[in-house]
Amino acid sequence: MKLKVKDIDIATGWPLVAVMNEIDALKLDLHHGDRVKIKKGKKNVIAIIDISESKKTVPSGQIGLYEEVLIKLNARSGNLVDISLVEKPASIQYIKKKLKGKKLSYGEFYQIIDDIIKNKLSEIEITYFVSACYTKGLDLNETVSLTKAMVNTGEILKLNKYPVMDKHCIGGVAGNRTTMVVVPIIAAAGLTIPKTSSRSITSPAGTADTMEVLCNVCFSIKEIKNIVRKTNACLVWGGSVNLAPADDKIIRIEHPVSLDPEGQLLASILAKKKSVSATHLLVDIPIGKGTKIESRIKALHLKRLFESISKKLGIKIMVVITDGSQPIGNGIGPALEARDVMWVLENDLRQPFDLREKSIKMAGLLLEIGDKAKKGAGAKKALEILKSGAAYKKMIEIIKAQGGKKIKAEDIKIGKFAYNFKANKSGLIIHIDNESISKIAKAAGAPLDNGAGIYFHKHVKNFVKKGDKIFTIYAENKQKLKYSINLLKKTDGVVVK
Amino acid sequence: MKLKVKDIDIATGWPLVAVMNEIDALKLDLHHGDRVKIKKGKKNVIAIIDISESKKTVPSGQIGLYEEVLIKLNARSGNLVDISLVEKPASIQYIKKKLKGKKLSYGEFYQIIDDIIKNKLSEIEITYFVSACYTKGLDLNETVSLTKAMVNTGEILKLNKYPVMDKHCIGGVAGNRTTMVVVPIIAAAGLTIPKTSSRSITSPAGTADTMEVLCNVCFSIKEIKNIVRKTNACLVWGGSVNLAPADDKIIRIEHPVSLDPEGQLLASILAKKKSVSATHLLVDIPIGKGTKIESRIKALHLKRLFESISKKLGIKIMVVITDGSQPIGNGIGPALEARDVMWVLENDLRQPFDLREKSIKMAGLLLEIGDKAKKGAGAKKALEILKSGAAYKKMIEIIKAQGGKKIKAEDIKIGKFAYNFKANKSGLIIHIDNESISKIAKAAGAPLDNGAGIYFHKHVKNFVKKGDKIFTIYAENKQKLKYSINLLKKTDGVVVK
Repeated sequence: MKLKVKDIDIATGWPLVAVMNEIDALKLDLHHGDRVKIKKGKKNVIAIIDISESKKTVPSGQIGLYEEVLIKLNARSGNLVDISLVEKPASIQYIKKKLKGKKLSYGEFYQIIDDIIKNKLSEIEITYFVSACYTKGLDLNETVSLTKAMVNTGEILKLNKYPVMDKHCIGGVAGNRTTMVVVPIIAAAGLTIPKTSSRSITSPAGTADTMEVLCNVCFSIKEIKNIVRKTNACLVWGGSVNLAPADDKIIRIEHPVSLDPEGQLLASILAKKKSVSATHLLVDIPIGKGTKIESRIKALHLKRLFESISKKLGIKIMVVITDGSQPIGNGIGPALEARDVMWVLENDLRQPFDLREKSIKMAGLLLEIGDKAKKGAGAKKALEILKSGAAYKKMIEIIKAQGGKKIKAEDIKIGKFAYNFKANKSGLIIHIDNESISKIAKAAGAPLDNGAGIYFHKHVKNFVKKGDKIFTIYAENKQKLKYSINLLKKTDGVVVK
Repeated sequence: MKLKVKDIDIATGWPLVAVMNEIDALKLDLHHGDRVKIKKGKKNVIAIIDISESKKTVPSGQIGLYEEVLIKLNARSGNLVDISLVEKPASIQYIKKKLKGKKLSYGEFYQIIDDIIKNKLSEIEITYFVSACYTKGLDLNETVSLTKAMVNTGEILKLNKYPVMDKHCIGGVAGNRTTMVVVPIIAAAGLTIPKTSSRSITSPAGTADTMEVLCNVCFSIKEIKNIVRKTNACLVWGGSVNLAPADDKIIRIEHPVSLDPEGQLLASILAKKKSVSATHLLVDIPIGKGTKIESRIKALHLKRLFESISKKLGIKIMVVITDGSQPIGNGIGPALEARDVMWVLENDLRQPFDLREKSIKMAGLLLEIGDKAKKGAGAKKALEILKSGAAYKKMIEIIKAQGGKKIKAEDIKIGKFAYNFKANKSGLIIHIDNESISKIAKAAGAPLDNGAGIYFHKHVKNFVKKGDKIFTIYAENKQKLKYSINLLKKTDGVVVK
């Protein structure tokens, strides 16, 4: 069937879509979600059909093409294109198989994941896949297969080193920036640790946002290889490289019903690690009110799953369950957190000692599993490396290798508008609510305004006198400071009794 | 947040969608699929957010609005609108509940279905619902609740009559137009039968397409009420009235993976019946190769489910399993099938006797369950009504009440381009393949070209001599006749041995 192109001046950023009038669709026996081959001269693309009932959108005889399709066909309004029906991708059969509760093989997962990243599946089809994995569950072998499929459909950072260390924290605690202290300690000890981190999704800052205060975090695989060769480490944004890329698309599908399928969570974390060739991994599961995993029972269950799957993937793993009941460090927001990190590395007295303590503990465990310290002696060695200034020196190497210039805490600029939140009575701080604090920091502008956020002067279990500063809100402009103060007045972020 | 409108000249026909740049989305902590309230002056709408990574589509500071949103806000390019976050609809919690395998109540199903028809749920969210019902299954009570929710969220044809008869056939057999013979017989016997039918979805003709050859089939509820009051019956297109409207949207979601969840199939059929106030229902499940239900075991299972659910819905039901192994009647395609029907009603010798026989059987059973004949005596009575011309007279009443003029078989125009398919050897016809025949008829132009299709001169179990005409393909234009002949040559629609 020949149809005339109608230019739709918008990009969908998702599978290629073409809009047909219902009359033409009926003629070709096409339904919403079917696939067609659109041909113009020697160029052709496969697009998913959306059917329009209105003549106004796309009249019969025309086909509405979005930006991406127009570019691929080098087409513009009025061009004639040829439409023909194509088969559904094979992966749809496997999705249906999983919906029926059957087990999928590695080859079947690979096909599905490959079709997802190549934009061959529609949102509806991917939703069926995610839903089937959730309702029918993934067993150990399936989780391993899915992980491998995610790794092998993306780029892989090959380092030819052994061991390759990595760490991961199951999020939920504001200001948990141990990674930026741990990585230089481990690298200074002579171990390789190519760390990729995420940006903030719902928090006031991700590790990548915080590191970006100091230097660039977006690099290609080749550039990362060079940085790691020079420094034994890197601290980069995972999103800038194509490591296990299916993950982002799956997360996008899970978001509308805030689904958190266990098998996929594990596969997505371990795929990122496997993609950087990690051989030794430390996983931190903080528990407590407001964290992702609220109970110890759930954390233990997750720990066991991590251990079983990592074994099958050939990754030596240690999983620790830590206290996530209050923010770690004093700063919340990219610049404030980066300053905390640098203070720790500089052995400055203004450092948050809880961040230092947790970092030493984590680094110690990594030194132990990486055979740089005997069991029980890791923390001591980590502390030595930190105290000696070797970790700070290593951090400067990394920052410079990543094109950065800010190498001291005092170089970091904090938002110039500030508001002090003071105790309205004397007493003991019994609770600081992660979630409320996050919201206030975000209202102040974090993470986009990197100098915005919150700085704590007091913590849980501290006594305060009426009028004592508990925290300061920082913002880069007055309006946002006002927003955050308004929000602060509506919430109970800090409970004093 | 204030954003400037960018007009996107296309209607989505689905939930209201707005496109934001990722930078603005991050500022408001919005993700793909979240909902926002868009306000312009006193008008506001709730739309689902699509996030654009490209500046070209929607730059930061702007918001891309599709046709429907523009109309509701009375907005145009350059207008400023105010964006604020809104909560997800409550039904998402119920969808999640079902995903977790818990039972849903009537109230919960009602909320989900109501949100579906009010366009409040995105395709991803509806897919999770459909998928959860499929993977977790619906028990008897849930199927009844879902059916009632579908009925109560649409219009209802209230007739104040008892009994109200109805019939339904679980599709899959080409040319199965018994409905158009049965309805006039039943109405002539004094029973009320307000029949709504579907158009073709994948077949060369639906009952609505066939009836449309004779008269109009699109009416409002009020008009249908008038037609039924005048004639005891109607033969209209269900899609023109708002009866259990959620069904179409659910089918659209099932299509991409050709899902056929049992509970939803039953709910969707029974909701349509309940919406026309049916009290007595005959369900025909044809079985055989190429039909929807291929095995007797599956048909019996479905029969039992129909019986249990109908009982709970207060519908008196009879389910019959019939032979669907070959097409019924001689014609395939709207006009050819309408001519078969009229020949049967006119008692013309050219009538297809298999269509007459099956119609009499079905009508007989309906007369029995409607208490117009004793058990076992229904078919005899149906035959009398047909032979006496009373059914034909009733059909003319119905056609006229529906604004039609073609009241005889000879008024019906058949496509003027024809091709005869002849036996290439002598022997016994052992198989006619429903699916291949459908495809050939559709290639010839059916159902859009209503004179197009296939007319059978011979049937399964007939002996043919080499050169005998087995069937004729009709088309309204030469090109399509050629298409269908090409397709014919590639398939084995008829097997002679």
